[in-house]
Amino acid sequence: MAKSKYEYVKNFELDDTCLPNCWIVIRIDGRSFQRFADIHGYVKPNDIRGLNLMSRAATCVMDEFRDICLGYGQSDEFTFVFRKDTNLFNRRASKLMSTVNSLFASSFVFNWNSYFGPIRLQYPPCFDARVVLYPTDKNLRDYLSWRQADVHINNLYNTAFWSLVLKKGFTNAQAEERLKGTVASDKNELLFSEFGLNYNNEPAVYRKGTILIRKLCKQPPEGKLRPIILPFFTDMIGDSFWKEHPEILGLKSLAIYHPPSEDLPNETNKKSSSPPGLKNGPPVTKSVSSESVEKSDKDS
Amino acid sequence: MAKSKYEYVKNFELDDTCLPNCWIVIRIDGRSFQRFADIHGYVKPNDIRGLNLMSRAATCVMDEFRDICLGYGQSDEFTFVFRKDTNLFNRRASKLMSTVNSLFASSFVFNWNSYFGPIRLQYPPCFDARVVLYPTDKNLRDYLSWRQADVHINNLYNTAFWSLVLKKGFTNAQAEERLKGTVASDKNELLFSEFGLNYNNEPAVYRKGTILIRKLCKQPPEGKLRPIILPFFTDMIGDSFWKEHPEILGLKSLAIYHPPSEDLPNETNKKSSSPPGLKNGPPVTKSVSSESVEKSDKDS
Amino acid sequence: MAKSKYEYVKNFELDDTCLPNCWIVIRIDGRSFQRFADIHGYVKPNDIRGLNLMSRAATCVMDEFRDICLGYGQSDEFTFVFRKDTNLFNRRASKLMSTVNSLFASSFVFNWNSYFGPIRLQYPPCFDARVVLYPTDKNLRDYLSWRQADVHINNLYNTAFWSLVLKKGFTNAQAEERLKGTVASDKNELLFSEFGLNYNNEPAVYRKGTILIRKLCKQPPEGKLRPIILPFFTDMIGDSFWKEHPEILGLKSLAIYHPPSEDLPNETNKKSSSPPGLKNGPPVTKSVSSESVEKSDKDS
Amino acid sequence: MAKSKYEYVKNFELDDTCLPNCWIVIRIDGRSFQRFADIHGYVKPNDIRGLNLMSRAATCVMDEFRDICLGYGQSDEFTFVFRKDTNLFNRRASKLMSTVNSLFASSFVFNWNSYFGPIRLQYPPCFDARVVLYPTDKNLRDYLSWRQADVHINNLYNTAFWSLVLKKGFTNAQAEERLKGTVASDKNELLFSEFGLNYNNEPAVYRKGTILIRKLCKQPPEGKLRPIILPFFTDMIGDSFWKEHPEILGLKSLAIYHPPSEDLPNETNKKSSSPPGLKNGPPVTKSVSSESVEKSDKDS
Repeated sequence: MAKSKYEYVKNFELDDTCLPNCWIVIRIDGRSFQRFADIHGYVKPNDIRGLNLMSRAATCVMDEFRDICLGYGQSDEFTFVFRKDTNLFNRRASKLMSTVNSLFASSFVFNWNSYFGPIRLQYPPCFDARVVLYPTDKNLRDYLSWRQADVHINNLYNTAFWSLVLKKGFTNAQAEERLKGTVASDKNELLFSEFGLNYNNEPAVYRKGTILIRKLCKQPPEGKLRPIILPFFTDMIGDSFWKEHPEILGLKSLAIYHPPSEDLPNETNKKSSSPPGLKNGPPVTKSVSSESVEKSDKDS
Repeated sequence: MAKSKYEYVKNFELDDTCLPNCWIVIRIDGRSFQRFADIHGYVKPNDIRGLNLMSRAATCVMDEFRDICLGYGQSDEFTFVFRKDTNLFNRRASKLMSTVNSLFASSFVFNWNSYFGPIRLQYPPCFDARVVLYPTDKNLRDYLSWRQADVHINNLYNTAFWSLVLKKGFTNAQAEERLKGTVASDKNELLFSEFGLNYNNEPAVYRKGTILIRKLCKQPPEGKLRPIILPFFTDMIGDSFWKEHPEILGLKSLAIYHPPSEDLPNETNKKSSSPPGLKNGPPVTKSVSSESVEKSDKDS
Repeated sequence: MAKSKYEYVKNFELDDTCLPNCWIVIRIDGRSFQRFADIHGYVKPNDIRGLNLMSRAATCVMDEFRDICLGYGQSDEFTFVFRKDTNLFNRRASKLMSTVNSLFASSFVFNWNSYFGPIRLQYPPCFDARVVLYPTDKNLRDYLSWRQADVHINNLYNTAFWSLVLKKGFTNAQAEERLKGTVASDKNELLFSEFGLNYNNEPAVYRKGTILIRKLCKQPPEGKLRPIILPFFTDMIGDSFWKEHPEILGLKSLAIYHPPSEDLPNETNKKSSSPPGLKNGPPVTKSVSSESVEKSDKDS
Repeated sequence: MAKSKYEYVKNFELDDTCLPNCWIVIRIDGRSFQRFADIHGYVKPNDIRGLNLMSRAATCVMDEFRDICLGYGQSDEFTFVFRKDTNLFNRRASKLMSTVNSLFASSFVFNWNSYFGPIRLQYPPCFDARVVLYPTDKNLRDYLSWRQADVHINNLYNTAFWSLVLKKGFTNAQAEERLKGTVASDKNELLFSEFGLNYNNEPAVYRKGTILIRKLCKQPPEGKLRPIILPFFTDMIGDSFWKEHPEILGLKSLAIYHPPSEDLPNETNKKSSSPPGLKNGPPVTKSVSSESVEKSDKDS
């Protein structure tokens, strides 16, 4: 049992340290999620339970790793951005990627019942992950803009596609054929004229994806400020979001979150980047659906 | 929404292809599992439920990825060996590692209740993972020997340690002090003289860890041969295991599994590498506890 | 001769693309150059022929690779900075490193006789090289500051050390002992009081190293502007250098070089970072030929 | 001059250790050597001076790095094979590659005059380099076979091409057209029927490339055995070479070299893989010095 005789095999592990002073982006992607969604009866084109469960799992990851300064989710993918000065796991790529990815996956299963209630999870899901480094703030913003532009393109298409299928009885092939060659304005027009649907009034969570960031929030009963992970469903491509949350790129201490309804008149509220849901009263707290928020808060 | 304007960010993803013709080893390791075990009331020094759950999750991974030719588990870690000629995901390290790791984690949670029954899972567990390449069969065997020697060393120590604590009322510090400087034979002697325990009669799953390999097994009712992932609790350091299962290193088609009790006299049985459990009658089938085996079989 | 049967071996070449949008720094370092210098009779503490030959080889490299925007040399090392947006060799690290390094080495030998005249080159020298990526301008400047601070520390020590040895007859060990524990001001004082030497009057090429950058210069006879690689022996740690040559970090077109003597009064001239040698008439071509640099040395 | 303030930049250097227990292959390739050959009047299709100079530079590299167990050159490329157990530079890829490559380049220039006599070197040449790892002996042999098959294909083509151009007055385009679509036997036939040239009688150095390995040779005057780098111009694709020199793949001590003429009858000699030049007396030192190689050339 001479362990030392075999220990040379440890030398085959090679270093995979991430270049310092770069934003470390980890993107998780559901594997064969089309099939997973079909089997579990996901609503088309968007299933709010599924999106909220993804956000719940992501919040769990961000609760564990404080150096993640932003999460961004859409469909079956989630992006986590580590501070560019993080030294977690000595910036070893495989450590960062594997812990984030496995915690996301186990949280997804752990919280399944809270979101899908009576629908039983049929089999454990699988996510791939990758690490990408971005040297500058502009590169990072362009990455996030890329993902958010992707949401827009996909969601507009899917909204039109499933309207044709679900409301007009098109087959998938017919719907595909109908949309072939159309540009964004064509699809907007189609939705409005044929389904009376103004795409811009669709829930922001579908059109913009979910941004998770940490903010200081007053916590009852004493109103003590505590860091809470909040969801935003707003545009990240323009400058507003980054101006309202300068601590993210600036690597600054957390800023206090001022819910728009508290101290702002309505017209300002509309311009605000705060999640539309907040207007309807869900608690200004951590998670992505009113229910889960309350639960998750008690946990923390 | 000019997606193309941002797509340049895709070029920041760098290639991480594994060198061809090397065994790809992925090792998963529970993060902060000491705490996890304490909170969930794991039995000391070994909790068979925990070990079986690990093996169940590993079997789930191996069912999904046919190019994994061997799994090896002990304590809170599991190793997966991909065939050296695998081309899964074009041998991209991050893809291989992240899918294996996330599927393991989600399977662990998914199957928790089957093993821990009434004990509720308190929070989702986290596993790190790493990829290591081994160029030769000898290197791979030495890696596995290293892990198996590790089991022996740890388990002998833990068995002695927890005997002192649980049966003699030592404090942890006293038990540590008592064992300081002892070698293997000292601990064997201690266990025998003070606790009447012959270490070599301890369950092989504790002493040897769990080896998972794929074998062709006769399946009822017609006795059709099907590939089944079987657990073995035997020595991998010597040559016997590798001679009995030459298809692993030889990259050959699966071999038929002949349960020792069927066609071998008792004295041969003892030398056999088959799992001791088989003598006591558990079904010659895929998984690691009689219950779960039956279930998992129906699934596949 | 079935070549195709063997061509699979090409797949073992792995990708080593440099992360985009980072400064690519290649540093070359003489191997066993202490011995090389001794054998070839290098003057202590600095041999201007050796330094000029290094700069000549570096100029040769920069003439070949236009995407190198700055070179910096000291002692037996030279740093080359590729524009962060270079796409040369698709940013493959080994290609960039090996071509720069081999061209430097062959140029060093090729030009040996021009600098060391009758001293015959005894054997071919060897240089190692490394590639390092710097994500931001600040990181790059800090890298260059690090190297230039290194010149200062080493040269001050060496000047004191060799003064003791060559002018006072100390043995190497005695000189080392004498300097042990001294700080910069001690060495300055030692040089001044014991050798009448004001360290700040030592030639800038020794104290600051050699910076090579490309500038547009008027070329005779018609005064047409052409890009010329010019040497500067000035401070890079402060901001002045970077303000005077904003095209380097700004990735802009080359700026025109205005020799200080042409349009500036004397007192300004002293503060300028331009090479003193240029006052004696601009070098016709690459200004690091042995002549022009020897002149600039005498002036400084 | 606070050097320490900047030293953090050292952390941006990332590890590039080569996987243990793999053959480390470094291949050097002349950059723009077509132009280099034209300018320096290289003879077509093969210039023995150029080949010998390449071998001379390679011998210089192998003299410096004892862990290189085999060199193989053809045209403007050279391959160096490091023992798979080498620990030189802790197996850091960039260190290994850059030192080999720069020493090769500087040796090429250093020795230019010995091979090209009155022809003055016009400018310093440039070589790129790459590192490739091969996990098994078979992979390594296949790599070398790939390169040697490449020599055959290229040299047969070039011999036919330049015969048409130089002896029949074809233009380059006409020669290319004439050879389009021909297979090896066509070119052999063309050479024989139109130029009376039996391709198999062409010098082996052209047809097989140059293999450099280290052997123990008796050195005058006392006949003391010393390790000498010897050139062989023989087939490496079949097994013979590897059987005659088992120490290479076996990582054994050097074997004694027995020149074929000493103990073998003539007919055996022809089959031998030993360099023809050796029949005229063993080379005094490294057998690729210009003299000894010129001799071996005349013989072949």
